[in-house]
Amino acid sequence: MHRFFLPASSFSATEVHFPESVSRQIVQVLRLKVETEVTVLDGSGQEYAVRLTSVDAHLCVGVIESNQPCLNEPETQIDLYLCLTQREKFEWILQKCTELGVSRFVPVISSRSLVQEEKDFVKKLERWQKIIQEAAEQSHRARVPGIVPPLHFREALQQAAAEGRCRLIPWEEEHSLSLHAALQRHPQEHYAVLIGPEGGFSPEEVGLAQAAGFLSVTLGPRILRMETAAMAAVALILYDQGEMDA
Amino acid sequence: MHRFFLPASSFSATEVHFPESVSRQIVQVLRLKVETEVTVLDGSGQEYAVRLTSVDAHLCVGVIESNQPCLNEPETQIDLYLCLTQREKFEWILQKCTELGVSRFVPVISSRSLVQEEKDFVKKLERWQKIIQEAAEQSHRARVPGIVPPLHFREALQQAAAEGRCRLIPWEEEHSLSLHAALQRHPQEHYAVLIGPEGGFSPEEVGLAQAAGFLSVTLGPRILRMETAAMAAVALILYDQGEMDA
Repeated sequence: MHRFFLPASSFSATEVHFPESVSRQIVQVLRLKVETEVTVLDGSGQEYAVRLTSVDAHLCVGVIESNQPCLNEPETQIDLYLCLTQREKFEWILQKCTELGVSRFVPVISSRSLVQEEKDFVKKLERWQKIIQEAAEQSHRARVPGIVPPLHFREALQQAAAEGRCRLIPWEEEHSLSLHAALQRHPQEHYAVLIGPEGGFSPEEVGLAQAAGFLSVTLGPRILRMETAAMAAVALILYDQGEMDA
Repeated sequence: MHRFFLPASSFSATEVHFPESVSRQIVQVLRLKVETEVTVLDGSGQEYAVRLTSVDAHLCVGVIESNQPCLNEPETQIDLYLCLTQREKFEWILQKCTELGVSRFVPVISSRSLVQEEKDFVKKLERWQKIIQEAAEQSHRARVPGIVPPLHFREALQQAAAEGRCRLIPWEEEHSLSLHAALQRHPQEHYAVLIGPEGGFSPEEVGLAQAAGFLSVTLGPRILRMETAAMAAVALILYDQGEMDA
């Protein structure tokens, strides 16, 4: 069944008015007909069974038949601080890590980041939000993870420290502290994970992160590419906390 | 430092003769010079520190300065039975799961597989081997995971059953047995994991797999795409077995 996140303004007590962009998708891409059942989410954790009553590329309308809490969100919150890299790879990580269960993405500009022009960030952010929302719909999440405009490396460290989460930085030069040991040592419900760009962090950056309270952890003896490390770190933290169970 | 897997025929007691394809790469792509130190692996678990003594696009030669066991291989063996799908996605999974530590890939033709023409498989297999070898070099593995020609779904089930491994099939309709519970119940050193194509297995196929001794397991309430499920399953099994520690 198709799933759509809609803004609060789309809901009345009994009906849903689909925004124009979604209406167009319903009519022109998905070619759904009147009477089709869809699932609509308000992003607050509720999901609604909706039957389409009027189908038009400018405005689709549906009637709310029932609603219930959507219980697919992990209790463990992961903020993924993700260094900017080549566009395709970055977007791919946003998609996969949304499926897995990240709560929020914070793009980071590190010394080895491939930085897109900063003036493009507004446009980028829109595109990233769209990718994340589609992945959240596809993976049956109850909320759409947030994403904020890119921060420079030191700003990102400051923000993570100010928010007081357990901070982890997977690093290929860390050879003693395992992720599991770090999680055992800091049982929390909220983690900040910092993932380096292709080519890794500079040693200076790792030092700064450690000084800002990040624990460097190993993900094992095999050297993982950036996108593999991001996905593995998220999956393993959620698994360790029992969030990949039924 | 650059790493190269070479066939046994490349090694003498004191020297390494690089095959022509690798020599060309050394000269034309990497532009390495005489006296450069590289790491050479024989695929049996040994790694050799080699200093280039002669550099030529037809034949590079190096002297072996020392050798030692390469300890980056997991003890836990994972055979990944992977349904064929769109080329780019399939190759991407080969690359990422090699980094993570899969032992062997078995491509599978299921009812919803996007099957490439079977006559193309010889060429494909060569290409897949190359992708896997490069990923094994990049991730500092000691061995290159194997890959076999594609099997039809029932043949794949038979092979996995004949080899007697603990067989797991992540399935979005499984809502009780978690991966962790399955691993606890069957502590082994060798697993076969069957990953469905885009669109999932048909219910009939899941039934056949279960009859062939596959345990269906959940990877949690969020619906993962094929490539996310493959990577997550491999990473989580290795993590559960302590193979992602230092």
